[in-house]
Amino acid sequence: MRKILVIGIGAGDPDYLTQQAIKALNRVDVFFVPDKGTEKAALKQLRTTILQRFVARKDVDMVAIEVPQRAAAGCYQDNVDHWHAELADRYGRQFQQHLADGQIGGLLVWGDPALYDSTLRIIERLRAKGLALDYEVIPGISSVQVLAAKHRIALNQIGEPVTLTTGRKLADGFPSEAGSVVVMLDGTQAFAQLTEPDLEIFWGAYLGTPDEILIAGPLAEVKDQIATVRAEARARHGWIMDIYLLRRSAPA
Amino acid sequence: MRKILVIGIGAGDPDYLTQQAIKALNRVDVFFVPDKGTEKAALKQLRTTILQRFVARKDVDMVAIEVPQRAAAGCYQDNVDHWHAELADRYGRQFQQHLADGQIGGLLVWGDPALYDSTLRIIERLRAKGLALDYEVIPGISSVQVLAAKHRIALNQIGEPVTLTTGRKLADGFPSEAGSVVVMLDGTQAFAQLTEPDLEIFWGAYLGTPDEILIAGPLAEVKDQIATVRAEARARHGWIMDIYLLRRSAPA
Ligand SMILES: C[S@@+](CC[C@H](N)C(=O)[O-])C[C@H]1O[C@@H](n2cnc3c(N)ncnc32)[C@H](O)[C@@H]1O
Ligand SMILES: C[S@@+](CC[C@H](N)C(=O)[O-])C[C@H]1O[C@@H](n2cnc3c(N)ncnc32)[C@H](O)[C@@H]1O
Repeated sequence: MRKILVIGIGAGDPDYLTQQAIKALNRVDVFFVPDKGTEKAALKQLRTTILQRFVARKDVDMVAIEVPQRAAAGCYQDNVDHWHAELADRYGRQFQQHLADGQIGGLLVWGDPALYDSTLRIIERLRAKGLALDYEVIPGISSVQVLAAKHRIALNQIGEPVTLTTGRKLADGFPSEAGSVVVMLDGTQAFAQLTEPDLEIFWGAYLGTPDEILIAGPLAEVKDQIATVRAEARARHGWIMDIYLLRRSAPA
Repeated sequence: MRKILVIGIGAGDPDYLTQQAIKALNRVDVFFVPDKGTEKAALKQLRTTILQRFVARKDVDMVAIEVPQRAAAGCYQDNVDHWHAELADRYGRQFQQHLADGQIGGLLVWGDPALYDSTLRIIERLRAKGLALDYEVIPGISSVQVLAAKHRIALNQIGEPVTLTTGRKLADGFPSEAGSVVVMLDGTQAFAQLTEPDLEIFWGAYLGTPDEILIAGPLAEVKDQIATVRAEARARHGWIMDIYLLRRSAPA
């Protein structure tokens, strides 16, 4: 039996690594490293830092897995499904080629593997196709938590729910029943289109990294500033990762 | 200026501690330790283990803060508000008495301080009342993440939202638009009252501890089992902490 450790490495700061993740890193025989091109420069950097700083043994192997582009046109769910199938094939081939029976493979996942990440689905696909593969999941500090910690806020208002969602979903409108809403994967600044008068926003980019930017305030007052700062930062770095929390302001 | 470090210590397993939390623990001059009575035996145990294992300096002080009971009858929001006011008074007195100017106080928070925890609100209250107090928040692995990691599932379905909520809110019914729903603070087993035919549940108790229990399956099939196991475990331990994720089953 081969085993895979899916290790959450936290979002941005190598100090977000848990003791459990450090122990897991040191059990790995072969790290499988998805290669996603330029946008993931930050992940590559963090991964290198983490392996150098926390992995004691010097005989670990690194195997690159080339990540195909996901189709942008057509049905979103179908595109994701095809992309996962293609990814599963590539992961499966590399696991079979580079992991001997009884060996342990490692996959480093940005933030927490449980949030908007395909690694667990890919492993489940391989198992469903009959590949004998055991796996463990090690949670990591997600960008949602870093956002809250840096703004020093609770995600929830007292006794109220929190919804984690995507820019794509927010584009359909602010969910009316949700207390607080955290938005990830927003390439289109969906926040700027909201018309609710009483929202506050807590925004963060490159969280946990030396380039971290934080802006907070009433949405109507700060949304233009966020859009400008975001566009400038994105142009300067060539890529951006940002996330934000929206909630109704407390009545004065 | 006094400074407080609000340190997330993870939910259950001392190995959930991050590098950042360990560094923070070692900056603290005085730990303030809320004393909540029997139900928090697990927290007391985890706190002791963590301080012994990770704090290098031997001259740290420990100051207990007695936590009053929150009123159970009447309006929930008002009760919480009065309770926070009372807590803030007690914290404020202890900070003033035991922290000299320039010293650092530490508060250990179970899981992540950003989720259903009053520590940040209490500090904001003290600052609003004029106490000169700086603070930093260190995120921790929350029970939500441990639940997902132990069941080896993503919190979200592909591209879909995740709602974190309480048993109290779930008692009003399953939120129809929410993709996946994570329920905390459920003293009344609200899941057992749901009538949606197509829900799956992923349940966990005492997560991250040696007493951890996991049960998953179609809600209709496993809800009685969960209720029974929960009642037995609760009777045996004298207390319980449990959490669960509900989602619609994928169409066959
Ligand atoms: C594919 S999801 C992966 C999330 C990751 N698993 C986690 O737990 O944070 C990527 C999205 O997470 C958010 N994100 C991740 N890291 C971030 C960071 N350091 N700063 C700001 N946003 C971040 C952004 O919204 C980004 O679009
Ligand atoms: C007051 S909230 C605090 C949550 C905490 N800040 C966190 O991040 O996990 C307490 C609730 O969290 C959940 N919880 C916390 N630790 C848990 C554990 N080890 N196992 C199961 N549920 C847990 C339970 O639903 C419990 O009612």
